[in-house]
Amino acid sequence: MSTDTPLPKHLSASAVTELIDEAFPQIHAAGRVMEIEQIGPDSARVRMRLNDRNTRPGGTISGPAMFTLADFSIYAALIGRLGAPAIPSVTSNLNITFLMRPPPRDVIAETRLVRVGRRLAYADVALYSDGGSDIIAHATGTYALVAPVKFDGV
Amino acid sequence: MSTDTPLPKHLSASAVTELIDEAFPQIHAAGRVMEIEQIGPDSARVRMRLNDRNTRPGGTISGPAMFTLADFSIYAALIGRLGAPAIPSVTSNLNITFLMRPPPRDVIAETRLVRVGRRLAYADVALYSDGGSDIIAHATGTYALVAPVKFDGV
Amino acid sequence: MSTDTPLPKHLSASAVTELIDEAFPQIHAAGRVMEIEQIGPDSARVRMRLNDRNTRPGGTISGPAMFTLADFSIYAALIGRLGAPAIPSVTSNLNITFLMRPPPRDVIAETRLVRVGRRLAYADVALYSDGGSDIIAHATGTYALVAPVKFDGV
Amino acid sequence: MSTDTPLPKHLSASAVTELIDEAFPQIHAAGRVMEIEQIGPDSARVRMRLNDRNTRPGGTISGPAMFTLADFSIYAALIGRLGAPAIPSVTSNLNITFLMRPPPRDVIAETRLVRVGRRLAYADVALYSDGGSDIIAHATGTYALVAPVKFDGV
Repeated sequence: MSTDTPLPKHLSASAVTELIDEAFPQIHAAGRVMEIEQIGPDSARVRMRLNDRNTRPGGTISGPAMFTLADFSIYAALIGRLGAPAIPSVTSNLNITFLMRPPPRDVIAETRLVRVGRRLAYADVALYSDGGSDIIAHATGTYALVAPVKFDGV
Repeated sequence: MSTDTPLPKHLSASAVTELIDEAFPQIHAAGRVMEIEQIGPDSARVRMRLNDRNTRPGGTISGPAMFTLADFSIYAALIGRLGAPAIPSVTSNLNITFLMRPPPRDVIAETRLVRVGRRLAYADVALYSDGGSDIIAHATGTYALVAPVKFDGV
Repeated sequence: MSTDTPLPKHLSASAVTELIDEAFPQIHAAGRVMEIEQIGPDSARVRMRLNDRNTRPGGTISGPAMFTLADFSIYAALIGRLGAPAIPSVTSNLNITFLMRPPPRDVIAETRLVRVGRRLAYADVALYSDGGSDIIAHATGTYALVAPVKFDGV
Repeated sequence: MSTDTPLPKHLSASAVTELIDEAFPQIHAAGRVMEIEQIGPDSARVRMRLNDRNTRPGGTISGPAMFTLADFSIYAALIGRLGAPAIPSVTSNLNITFLMRPPPRDVIAETRLVRVGRRLAYADVALYSDGGSDIIAHATGTYALVAPVKFDGV
């Protein structure tokens, strides 16, 4: 994150990655599957690398793996927006609809924070196959912001 | 399943387990975590054993692990009701709400098939901590019944 | 609610009806469509009377009318459980799945409060056609308990 | 809809309005509350006019009214995309999250068709207060496309 610009309203992807790695070192015990590619003021893009555990016979991606990606990408977006105070946030609801059977490729989550309130945040997530333009699954999620967080305007 | 009683309208827990083991042998690659304890005509009870992968620091159960359990328990209930033709069914939607932070214990899913149509099935799932009476998470799910399945009355 | 019996943990259906009538007199401007039939410690049964506004051509019940019923029945259950302090509660999320096309009859909502926390309550609702045993629609809802409410054990 | 351009992939707002008026004349019995303002190839913008029935004491918009708007706007988008064959479509699921208490103004629904399959369509809807830029409620919906519809690529 550049320090000489006036509006660094969010952390960078690498800063979010560091915060999560520090808080949850065991998350990568089996290898680094989730990669935070981009963080915006109210968005995140996260890649889930194809691996043995998230594929299913016939060559598709498991539903629970896509859930995990959607959930993680909202978490990353929240930390990008709110910083370390968002670390203790927990998922309150996640609703995921599977729209297409994805091919065995990396999956990309594009998350948008729709609303970040004092206690709750709400986001939507579109999942794509790497290189594809169709949405293969769509999720919405509500997070409980456990620690009191300061943010503007809500 | 007894063959001389008039109303064996569903498979037994062990018959469902066998069908799933046969179709997805890799599901237990890392040990048998999910155990189908009971199948009824429109219900299933599944236990998720506590293990390293589904716990989180601070001693709680991960959200994705609870999603996986809810999803699996609906699948088990569908196979119990419809038999092998339900094997290729896929999750179309799953909506899960986390109500309490569960302690580090086995989690029990109680699934009820609310509606089994020709193409879609809908179920709800209550998750409990082993030995507890509070619902720690609640889910509803819709499955697409891929293969044409015969069943009565719908 | 009597104060000398040990277990009157909830208001009666008529007490809930009175509280709602008082707070929202305009709700019955077009006639009394919703009738609270029964309140339990964590449940409510509400009847939506068939009328011109909630039916659709071809003789079925409109989706928005069923949403309204599900939403109202959770509200009634909350007031039954928490009394007048629940009056300012507002719906935070409602997820409804329509399972069958209902015939043109009264619709009955059976609501169960799954969890009542300090700030949020979560319930599920099964909708039936009057006299039928099939669930025609199923909903889950989260309410924000606006006023600080006292209740035991959460 | 212009007939001499090569890509009229959707109906106009007025064509959709006509089709709905014809199929459901009673929808405007109490006055024209819903106004389809814009239809795109996979989108719709619908305005719900403020009126006595959709406001609540304290000057806010009722939840069921916002549900009705979200539901209607998906329906309008589907007819825009698929034409008259979409008329018999029915809502299968609608999940709505209320994010802010809206002021007593018209509400605008911006609907996007995320996926239109052979039998099911899935959309998301953002609701705004007229003139405001905050999303006051967000919904996702699944519709069952009752009549067999022809469309390309799915």
